[in-house]
Amino acid sequence: MPPAEAADPSTEVEVSALLERGRTLATPVLRAAVDRLAPPMDTVAAYHFGWIDAEGNPADGDGGKAVRPALALLSAQAAGRDPEVGVPGAVAVELVHNFSLLHDDLMDGDEQRRHRDTVWKVHGPAQAILVGDALFALANEILLELGTTEAGRAARRLTAATRALIDGQAQDISYEHRDRVSVRECLEMEGNKTGALLACASSIGAVLGGADDTAAEALERYGYHLGLAFQAVDDLLGIWGDPDATGKQTWSDLRQRKKSLPVVAALAAGGPASDRLGEILAEDAKSSDFENFSEEEFAARAALIEEAGGREWTAQEARRQHAIALEALDAVGMPPQVRAQFTALADFVVVRKR
Amino acid sequence: MPPAEAADPSTEVEVSALLERGRTLATPVLRAAVDRLAPPMDTVAAYHFGWIDAEGNPADGDGGKAVRPALALLSAQAAGRDPEVGVPGAVAVELVHNFSLLHDDLMDGDEQRRHRDTVWKVHGPAQAILVGDALFALANEILLELGTTEAGRAARRLTAATRALIDGQAQDISYEHRDRVSVRECLEMEGNKTGALLACASSIGAVLGGADDTAAEALERYGYHLGLAFQAVDDLLGIWGDPDATGKQTWSDLRQRKKSLPVVAALAAGGPASDRLGEILAEDAKSSDFENFSEEEFAARAALIEEAGGREWTAQEARRQHAIALEALDAVGMPPQVRAQFTALADFVVVRKR
Repeated sequence: MPPAEAADPSTEVEVSALLERGRTLATPVLRAAVDRLAPPMDTVAAYHFGWIDAEGNPADGDGGKAVRPALALLSAQAAGRDPEVGVPGAVAVELVHNFSLLHDDLMDGDEQRRHRDTVWKVHGPAQAILVGDALFALANEILLELGTTEAGRAARRLTAATRALIDGQAQDISYEHRDRVSVRECLEMEGNKTGALLACASSIGAVLGGADDTAAEALERYGYHLGLAFQAVDDLLGIWGDPDATGKQTWSDLRQRKKSLPVVAALAAGGPASDRLGEILAEDAKSSDFENFSEEEFAARAALIEEAGGREWTAQEARRQHAIALEALDAVGMPPQVRAQFTALADFVVVRKR
Repeated sequence: MPPAEAADPSTEVEVSALLERGRTLATPVLRAAVDRLAPPMDTVAAYHFGWIDAEGNPADGDGGKAVRPALALLSAQAAGRDPEVGVPGAVAVELVHNFSLLHDDLMDGDEQRRHRDTVWKVHGPAQAILVGDALFALANEILLELGTTEAGRAARRLTAATRALIDGQAQDISYEHRDRVSVRECLEMEGNKTGALLACASSIGAVLGGADDTAAEALERYGYHLGLAFQAVDDLLGIWGDPDATGKQTWSDLRQRKKSLPVVAALAAGGPASDRLGEILAEDAKSSDFENFSEEEFAARAALIEEAGGREWTAQEARRQHAIALEALDAVGMPPQVRAQFTALADFVVVRKR
C-alpha cells in the first residue's frame, strides 16, 4: 500500500522509531501517574502494565504496540507544536485504554492478556474493578490539572471517546447472546471499541496544542478509520494469525465464538459455504463440548469462512478503511514529514502480523 | 445543637424543603443524562436509581436523602448566584456517587440497597461494572460540555474527590482482612469514602458560580467534616438504628463484621469490656457459623461496645465534626439565610434516624 503522496527520501519514516519515541516520552509520565495510586492499587496497576510480575519483582513486560502514544505526539506536531505538548494526552489515552482492558477482561472472563494472567485472575475481581476506576480517574486528573482551556477541551473529547468505548463493550456483550449480528452492527461496535479511542489519540496532541475544531475533527476521522482498519486486521489475526506472533491460541476468536468481521461477513454473503457455516455455528452455540473441539474442527470452520468470502471481504475492508483514514489528512494543513509519519503508522497498522 | 448564629424567624429553615428543591431541580437533568446511555445501560441505570423495577415497570423508588444535590445548589448561592447554577454540579456529584455504589456493591457482595436487590444481583456483574463506568464518564461529560473555565475547575475537583472515593474503598477492602484497624485509619477511610464527595457537593455550585479557591476550599472543609459527622451517625445507626427506619437488619454492621467507628473506638479504649470485646471479635473472625448467630449474641456484642465507650465516643465525634464543619463557614462571606441553610443541613445530618 503506497503512501498517499510520493515519499521524499529526506522524510522517509521509521515506524519503529516513532513507536519508540512515544514509549520513551510517555512511559515515565505514565509511571509517575500510576505511582500516585494508594497501595495496593499502585502494585496492581504496575502488574497490569507489565512493570512487575505477580510476585512484585521488576519485570520488562510487553506493554503493547504503543501506537496510541505515538499518534498523540504526532498530532501535536500536526498542530505545529513540539511532540512533548502531546505527552499528557498520550498518557491520558493510555490510562483510559488500560482502564477498559482491566474491566473488559473481568466482564469477558478473559484469563490471559499480553502472555500473562489478567489482573482479576491474579489479584481478584475487586482489584480489577477498583484499579480500572482509578486509572480512569487518573486520566482526567492528568489532563485537567494542566488547567488550560485546551486541556478542558481535550478532557471533554476523551470523555466522549470513553463513553463510546463503554457503548462498544455493551454492544459486544449483547451480541454474544444473539444468533446473528449484521456487518453494520459489527462495524459500529468496532468503531466504538477501537475507533473512538484511536480517534482521540490521533487528535489529542493537536487539541492540547491549540488546534481548532476542524483540524481536530479531521484528525479524529483519520484515527477512527485507522481504528477500523486496525480492528479488521485484528479480526483476521484472531482467526488466521500465527500463534507465535500473536501470543494467542490458534483459531483464537473461533474458540471464543467471537462474531468478528470475517464471521459476520461470511454469514451475510449467502451461498452454500455461508449457509453451511450458519448451520454449523448454530449447532456450536448449543454444544456443551465446544471447548474440547479438535484443531481440525476449528480449521474446518475457518476454511468455510474463507470459502464464503469472509476473509477476503475483511482484508478488503481493512484497505478501504486505511484509504479513508489517509484521505482525512487532506483537511489538515500539516508539515509534509508529519503527514508522511501519519501515513507510515497507518501502513504499519494494516501490514502488522501481531 | 443550636445553629452557630441566633435564628432569625425570617430565615428559619425547612430542611425538607431544601432537600425537595435539590431533588426537583436535579432529577430531570439527571434523568436526561441517564437517557443518553445506550440500551441496555439506560434500563439498568434506571433500575439502580429506582425509576423502574426489575421488570422494567415505572417505580417510585427511594432515591436516597438527596443531601448532595441540596448542598450543590446551596453552594451556588454561597457564591451569590442562583441555585440553578449548581444544577450540573449536583447532577455530576450524584452520578459519581451512584457509580461508586454500583461498583462497591459488587466488590462487597452486597445484595440489597435501598430495600431492593442490587444491580449486580438483578442484571449481573458485567452490567454493574459497565453502567458504573458509564455514570462516571457521564459525570465528567455533564460538567465539561459546559465549556467554561469554571466547569474545568469543577471537573478537576470532582476528579480529585473521585480518586479519594476509590482510595477509601481500597482501604475499606484491605481493612476487612486485618484484625485491628486504628481509629485514625478508620477516620481516614471514612473521610475518603464519605467526606471527599460531600466536600465536592458543598463547593461545586460555588466553583461553577465563579467562587475563588479560598471560598471553594472553605466550603470543601465544611462538606468534608459534615461527611465525617454523617458517617459517625451512620456507624451508630448501623449498630443501634431502628430497622424500620434504616431499612437494614438489626445489628447490621455487626453482622457484616464491619470495623466501624464504634467498634474501633471500643477496641482502642482499653479496660475489661474493651479486652473482652477484642477476644470475642477475634473468635468471631474464625467462626464458620457466624451468620447464624442469634439476636442475643449480636446484642451482647453491641452491649460490650457500648460498655467500652464506643457508642458515646462516636456520638461525641459526630458532634465534634459537626462543630468543625460549621466553623469552616466563617471563612466564606455568604448571605445570612444561605449560611442558616448550611447550618440546618448539618444539624439534620447529625440528628437523622435513617
